[in-house]
Amino acid sequence: MEINKKDPGYQCWLSYSELKDGQFKDHMRKLCGNILVDQLSPVMASAAEELTAALGQILGIKINKINAPSNTGILTAGIAGKSKIIDENLTADEASRINEEGFLVKYVKTSPGIIIIAGKTDRGVLYGVFDFLLKIRDLKDPEDLYILENPCSNLRIINQWDNMDGSIERGYAGRSIFYSGNKFLGDFERITDYARLLVSIGINGIVLNNVNVKKYEAMFITDEKLPDIKKIADIFERYAIKTYLCINYASPIMIDGLKSADPLDPEVIEWWKKRAGIIYKTISGFGGFLVKADSEFNPGPFTYNRDHAQGANMLAEALAPFGGIVIWRCFVYNCVQDWRDRVTDRARSAYDVFKPLDGKFLPNVVLQIKNGPMDFQVREPVSPLFGGLEKTNQIIELQITQEYTGQQKHLCYLGTQWKTILDFDTYADGKGSAVSGIVTGKVFPMKYSGFAGVSNIGRDQNWTGHDLAQANLFAYGKLSWNPSVPADDISMEWAGLTFGNIDNVDKKITSILMDSWEIYESYTAPLGIGWMVNPNQHYGPSVDGYEYSRWGTYHRADCKGIGVDRTIAKGTGFTGLYHKSNTEIYESIGTCPDELILFFHYLPYSHKLKSGKSIIEHIYDSHFEGVDKAGALVERWMALKESVDQKRFLRILDKFKEQFSHSKEWRDVINSYFYRKTGIPDMKGRLIY
Amino acid sequence: MEINKKDPGYQCWLSYSELKDGQFKDHMRKLCGNILVDQLSPVMASAAEELTAALGQILGIKINKINAPSNTGILTAGIAGKSKIIDENLTADEASRINEEGFLVKYVKTSPGIIIIAGKTDRGVLYGVFDFLLKIRDLKDPEDLYILENPCSNLRIINQWDNMDGSIERGYAGRSIFYSGNKFLGDFERITDYARLLVSIGINGIVLNNVNVKKYEAMFITDEKLPDIKKIADIFERYAIKTYLCINYASPIMIDGLKSADPLDPEVIEWWKKRAGIIYKTISGFGGFLVKADSEFNPGPFTYNRDHAQGANMLAEALAPFGGIVIWRCFVYNCVQDWRDRVTDRARSAYDVFKPLDGKFLPNVVLQIKNGPMDFQVREPVSPLFGGLEKTNQIIELQITQEYTGQQKHLCYLGTQWKTILDFDTYADGKGSAVSGIVTGKVFPMKYSGFAGVSNIGRDQNWTGHDLAQANLFAYGKLSWNPSVPADDISMEWAGLTFGNIDNVDKKITSILMDSWEIYESYTAPLGIGWMVNPNQHYGPSVDGYEYSRWGTYHRADCKGIGVDRTIAKGTGFTGLYHKSNTEIYESIGTCPDELILFFHYLPYSHKLKSGKSIIEHIYDSHFEGVDKAGALVERWMALKESVDQKRFLRILDKFKEQFSHSKEWRDVINSYFYRKTGIPDMKGRLIY
Repeated sequence: MEINKKDPGYQCWLSYSELKDGQFKDHMRKLCGNILVDQLSPVMASAAEELTAALGQILGIKINKINAPSNTGILTAGIAGKSKIIDENLTADEASRINEEGFLVKYVKTSPGIIIIAGKTDRGVLYGVFDFLLKIRDLKDPEDLYILENPCSNLRIINQWDNMDGSIERGYAGRSIFYSGNKFLGDFERITDYARLLVSIGINGIVLNNVNVKKYEAMFITDEKLPDIKKIADIFERYAIKTYLCINYASPIMIDGLKSADPLDPEVIEWWKKRAGIIYKTISGFGGFLVKADSEFNPGPFTYNRDHAQGANMLAEALAPFGGIVIWRCFVYNCVQDWRDRVTDRARSAYDVFKPLDGKFLPNVVLQIKNGPMDFQVREPVSPLFGGLEKTNQIIELQITQEYTGQQKHLCYLGTQWKTILDFDTYADGKGSAVSGIVTGKVFPMKYSGFAGVSNIGRDQNWTGHDLAQANLFAYGKLSWNPSVPADDISMEWAGLTFGNIDNVDKKITSILMDSWEIYESYTAPLGIGWMVNPNQHYGPSVDGYEYSRWGTYHRADCKGIGVDRTIAKGTGFTGLYHKSNTEIYESIGTCPDELILFFHYLPYSHKLKSGKSIIEHIYDSHFEGVDKAGALVERWMALKESVDQKRFLRILDKFKEQFSHSKEWRDVINSYFYRKTGIPDMKGRLIY
Repeated sequence: MEINKKDPGYQCWLSYSELKDGQFKDHMRKLCGNILVDQLSPVMASAAEELTAALGQILGIKINKINAPSNTGILTAGIAGKSKIIDENLTADEASRINEEGFLVKYVKTSPGIIIIAGKTDRGVLYGVFDFLLKIRDLKDPEDLYILENPCSNLRIINQWDNMDGSIERGYAGRSIFYSGNKFLGDFERITDYARLLVSIGINGIVLNNVNVKKYEAMFITDEKLPDIKKIADIFERYAIKTYLCINYASPIMIDGLKSADPLDPEVIEWWKKRAGIIYKTISGFGGFLVKADSEFNPGPFTYNRDHAQGANMLAEALAPFGGIVIWRCFVYNCVQDWRDRVTDRARSAYDVFKPLDGKFLPNVVLQIKNGPMDFQVREPVSPLFGGLEKTNQIIELQITQEYTGQQKHLCYLGTQWKTILDFDTYADGKGSAVSGIVTGKVFPMKYSGFAGVSNIGRDQNWTGHDLAQANLFAYGKLSWNPSVPADDISMEWAGLTFGNIDNVDKKITSILMDSWEIYESYTAPLGIGWMVNPNQHYGPSVDGYEYSRWGTYHRADCKGIGVDRTIAKGTGFTGLYHKSNTEIYESIGTCPDELILFFHYLPYSHKLKSGKSIIEHIYDSHFEGVDKAGALVERWMALKESVDQKRFLRILDKFKEQFSHSKEWRDVINSYFYRKTGIPDMKGRLIY
């Protein structure tokens, strides 16, 4: 498929359209027409290039690149301590407040005025440049700007679940932009544009392949394939993004026919050390490994009766001399569970495996923990590992791609979901120990902290299938930079950059986005129970789809009630894994919040929720109302016909229509299932089949 | 994988092992040591070759091929009217009683004695040769033989659901023996052995590709691919098996870019005529086309507002000049049905489409009708088209491959199921109008009648995955030759040929086979309701797997009852499609047989069956007992340890163990589903989850 790079769907939030003629444009031309950037490094070159190209488009003039201060207004971007003009205009206090990746944007009112974009490093400068470009497109007068920003965490990573055959596990926006037919695609232009999108929202790392590492991808770390990886890594490096690779724990066996992959075997240890040396010789800025071990049929240290600290530390030792890190996933559970077994609880699993290892990992090991204890459901509680681990580097794994949240056919803005997670108080160090504080190293100081997000992009013209799903990628980046920004502020910024702000279109789109998670939740699995999806594909309703399975995913519905008892008193004891305040809240039916009540308790359908409704009433009502709201989304979007370009307007309209139609399928299957199971008719006499 | 042709699993029922030394062997050497066969045709050459090779192995001597009667005993195979020695020894009555494909085997007690294998055609002779070889391996003294057999129908066809990529739709015994990676495999030796297996049980036609004809297979009828097809067809032709191909109805568009495939479009008509000419120029003995049109997203005449008679007749006209036929599948239904719709009934569909067309098809069109109105379920009623169509060539489609009957992991001998179907009285021409009489043209005389069977073989060492599943292929051939043979006779013959008869192993295996269908039924979907399988793969239990789907497959279970009302009185009226006697039986709950009661009626769980049990009791009991019986199969097989070669003994033992284990999964899922839905505990207090 031919890609049209001029399509605003392709450009996402980086469409630098020209300002309307007028006072502001004239003013801007004066302020920004001359650019002074020392191209000291490839990253600085990217900054200069972006600034020149973007301002050229925005202002409709050719930007002058100058080498020294002149008599006209200057826009300068540079590194403190390496640029005279920066140093002259930065106070000591300012210089001390910018950290390794931070930046300062300010206007210095001399004559002629100078716009300063300063960083401690070239990375900081690049972030500053993109932030400046976002701000002026919001029609902010540079003379009024004063922005000093430092990212809250040092790992802000994207995980590509791309396979070398070109497929993307849980990808809903076309094939991979990196691979096709077990070959490297070599579309460096597209990769560059992806890198620009990522750095513009502060991403500083990318894992290039799926965590499930098969035959072909396992070879990425071989002498044969590394040069191809390097070509990609070079692009990302120019945008200050480190490249990581997922490795197969059995690599020594797969690649060189070793007899074992035992982390304590000297031959294996030696093999990884040698391999690390070769990798860093090829890609000096390599980030490290991401490892899914002993999970869903992937090999790992358990095979050799070693624990995960032993497993991860061996790799960490191999990478340490080069400054590399090992990111180790905590998504470890028994995936051949017996549904008859009511004692084993998948929700406990990551905690039970990793909590005892707290403090046993080397300083360059980072645990990557999914936000919830299950698997990216529409609603689940926060993983008790957050706040449970006090002495281990950790990052939170969020799923930008909408595996369980409508697969980029339904709208589900995840900014709101993520904020709910990040704002959750773990009480790990007393009240005020929110997840956001944990994953930014504020509650327990860590060398590494931050975010991993499973990418939602593919080779589609608009990157994300649903144009509005771009908001999720944007929100992920923004929150990983600063998790305290409100979800609607992020949406407003994104919508303004992406669709402009004529007729308040940014506000109206934000209003739609902000409602979307709740709408999706209302017509899918109720009250935190999750999993009522078609097996494997995870799209569309199948109430029993995961009920009699081996995956540890059950709702336990019978004709009398529904829910999983995870209490200490009578259930699996999962509630006891939280700190006391949360244990108490979840343990008691009286305090457990409605939206998670079935995750923690088995209750009769007649049980009265805090909302005042019985469970069965809630199921029927939320499903009927959810569909009404999905229908209203079509109307709300139709109202934007004049404010959005036709192409995207129609594309998105189709998606909303599909969502509305499919929401009825959800409603009817879920309602019919419970009506048939309980025999309780709808009190409002609505149609159930 | 390397194939070991000496493995008895590979040789199936054609393992010609040497007789033990003794009187019978000596006697046989005298009778059969000299063979006289005029090799007038490739088929006669195959007969001579098989006879020579087989007798050589059985008798442990080199067989003399002679050209004229001699002084020793002679075994002669020949065509009446073309062989002097045959004509001299055949009475006029005998000659008149052998039909085109029939044969006579007899001993003529002259001195020296002559064994006569006579046919009207080379095909008849070949069948006679194989039958003779089967008989003598059963230690029958040729001097006592007098067999005059004619097949009951003239189409006895195998359908390969093989795709050119090497996969087999619903194949459970490895990849295709014909194709791999979109190329012809060229394993002509294996194809020859397959042809020998098929002709030995009377098969006279094979369709080489899947009824779902995709891009690559659609090209089989092009000038480019026909030479490859011819190479395969030549092999089958030597064994008197005609080659057929499935075609895509949109071929004129796909192959030559025509604008339409409308059967009334002169360009399209011309295209097919020309194509037929080319096909027959390459493969003069080509059988014809098999067509799945307007079914499950395949194109067809409905696209152009033509009916299926118009669609089929157009192709028939193209093939008629060459003696070819069009086999047209009746598996036509709405596969995007809405589960909420209780009026549309998939079971009615084939009847509703094809009954009005009865008599409108050309004489070289044959309708291929699945045995039941749904889709090869473990139990379903007979399709009302049998007995409904009175003026149309028709063949019955049976599924040898065990799609819904345990996928060659569970044992399910289909001989019993097929006999139940063939013995069903349609009352089409009054009492005694069994399906067997319909599909052999006895009830309503037809030019073409017979059987189509979906093959269960693949590239596995033993052809069928489960060694005992070979019995299904054997039984299919035998029943298509003569549907009145009892299922246990067929099993006895097969088991004797395949495993010998030491320690009554043939009887013991037959006893296991004869129980197997009922055992499988007992722990899967109850009382004729069907479909409680995992979607797509169709293996293992998922009670609601097809309940909220678009496929027209519903059980309608709620907390009060279960079943589909297909009565005239209150349901879909499907019962009314049968002739009066059957309509009455099925319409009334009082007369409808237990095993189909939920196919025809929605009933409360408390409903008392004719067995005396309530429905819920039946569900619980049959599932617990079914598993016990599956467990007993392991024991019954273990008892044969000394009577079966170790290789096959262990292979089959593994399968029985797997079946036993998986039957528990079926039991527990089905029982738990109904216990949770009804709240009715098991009256015997057995464990339900």
